[in-house]
Amino acid sequence: MRFVQIVVLAGGTGGARFLRGVRAAAPEAEITAVVNTGDDVTMHGLRICPDLDTVMYTLGGGIDEERGWGRAGESWTVKEELAAYDADPTWFGLGDRDLATHLVRTRMLDAGYALSAVTAALCARWQPGVTLLPMSDQRVETHVVVTDPESGRPQAIHFQEWWVRHRAALDPAAFVQVGVDAARPAPGVVEAFAAADAILLAPSNPVVSIGTVLGVPGLREALLASPARVAGVSPIVGGAVVRGMADRCLPAMGIEVSAEGVGRHYGARSEGGLLDAWLVAEDDAADVPGVDVRARPLLMSSPEATTDLARAALGACAR
Amino acid sequence: MRFVQIVVLAGGTGGARFLRGVRAAAPEAEITAVVNTGDDVTMHGLRICPDLDTVMYTLGGGIDEERGWGRAGESWTVKEELAAYDADPTWFGLGDRDLATHLVRTRMLDAGYALSAVTAALCARWQPGVTLLPMSDQRVETHVVVTDPESGRPQAIHFQEWWVRHRAALDPAAFVQVGVDAARPAPGVVEAFAAADAILLAPSNPVVSIGTVLGVPGLREALLASPARVAGVSPIVGGAVVRGMADRCLPAMGIEVSAEGVGRHYGARSEGGLLDAWLVAEDDAADVPGVDVRARPLLMSSPEATTDLARAALGACAR
Repeated sequence: MRFVQIVVLAGGTGGARFLRGVRAAAPEAEITAVVNTGDDVTMHGLRICPDLDTVMYTLGGGIDEERGWGRAGESWTVKEELAAYDADPTWFGLGDRDLATHLVRTRMLDAGYALSAVTAALCARWQPGVTLLPMSDQRVETHVVVTDPESGRPQAIHFQEWWVRHRAALDPAAFVQVGVDAARPAPGVVEAFAAADAILLAPSNPVVSIGTVLGVPGLREALLASPARVAGVSPIVGGAVVRGMADRCLPAMGIEVSAEGVGRHYGARSEGGLLDAWLVAEDDAADVPGVDVRARPLLMSSPEATTDLARAALGACAR
Repeated sequence: MRFVQIVVLAGGTGGARFLRGVRAAAPEAEITAVVNTGDDVTMHGLRICPDLDTVMYTLGGGIDEERGWGRAGESWTVKEELAAYDADPTWFGLGDRDLATHLVRTRMLDAGYALSAVTAALCARWQPGVTLLPMSDQRVETHVVVTDPESGRPQAIHFQEWWVRHRAALDPAAFVQVGVDAARPAPGVVEAFAAADAILLAPSNPVVSIGTVLGVPGLREALLASPARVAGVSPIVGGAVVRGMADRCLPAMGIEVSAEGVGRHYGARSEGGLLDAWLVAEDDAADVPGVDVRARPLLMSSPEATTDLARAALGACAR
């Protein structure tokens, strides 16, 4: 089956690499990436959208492949200078090349453009080969409820502070989507689901990436109303995360850190859940009632392996 | 005579170097620099104050000595990236190190701090050894009235566009201080004049630097009410500018490009003008009625020559 309209829900590095595979597997399809913006943050007056940028740079050939985020050949002059001014925060990886993206975005947002329009403008340079959409034009920022080590009281800190500054060391009691009540799917998202003949959940964090995207009011409903089949790819292989901090997020939600646990969390579409199909690693057994579970090589260790994985995910959307 | 409170009116590079001389000539004095902010501009969403930064970097040891502006060891990564986005303007010299200063300033201004407070905060890092004051906390931006080459009609463009983009090639019909009516001297300026025992006009542009400072309502009056003598240093040597574009500005105001012309433009204090004394180059004859004209070496070709010049200017303030 040849797919014409593919929608991929994605977070950062894993989602970006998976999207590169989808683009290679379906070069003639129109691919729409609906990307998490819950990691977005304003620092030093700059609006930073880590997941959108990771996808844009990865698909546009500008990513630092080894690090998986930020620009290749990056330098850190501005960051060092900001530190010399004692300008908080000093713990965020603000590269010089990357910073130009944030300057252009911040200026456009301040001029009144919506994030989706800004993203399209930035993509005019990067030509990612997919339609890159933020999940929402409204600000939705993930905060993590942790116990303040000094006072012993619960405290909500921005996801970036929890992840980048504290390296996810503080136990998360909950994840809160600040602003989600006022959010709507960005222009084009609902239309993309309606026109889709395949919907893929990238192997991104089920809580703070895919979960955040699906938390936008109306977005989950639009996905479920789509005529397309929905296939997800497990971000958990052999009971562990391939990268990122899903193993720190899932337990806070009462979800087992396993391919089966995440599959059951997403649930079968026939029972009000999301999935028609669920791809797990070859050594992972997973019993997800009502879902077509398929064992495939999940590691995106090369462009070929990534394309094969995307092909397998698309195959699971075929009727 | 030993001076205790010195006020210097200054623009960019020439003023900054002269201030370095004043600091060396009077190491125990309290020196207040009242600096032109008419060159200030917002680009890429960043508030840029070229003259304040030139003075701060020069006195703080961070200036690029050869260029006379911007930071030593500067790199241009962000500027190149902005150009890759086709983000206007591309003609402004926005260095990576310098950019951090603009980020801190913009963030503080957006948070509601006054420019004078922001300048003090930036100086906590640079320790210029003088009190660095903007002429005003209100925005006053110099625009240049030129003839639009295409339409043939008069057009006002920002000073930076005229100077940096067009290299002052367009004939200026007039210089307009946008916002000046609502401006007041920054906190500390009037007090500094009142407490001064010497006031110096640096060899900065008489029109778009010193002239702009003096255009702030109340500032000229505060200077003239000071008990201190006022000595100016000619920016014109041998009928030419040492650097900058005063030779393009003076004719537009009907002022002769000569030490005498500028001296007469400033005028004698006894006749409602500014000057008690006027320092001109040794080969420049200047007849400025009512003013103590002194011929001295004016070229700031070395730290020693600059200190000697500052000492001569201070000497002209002695009663």
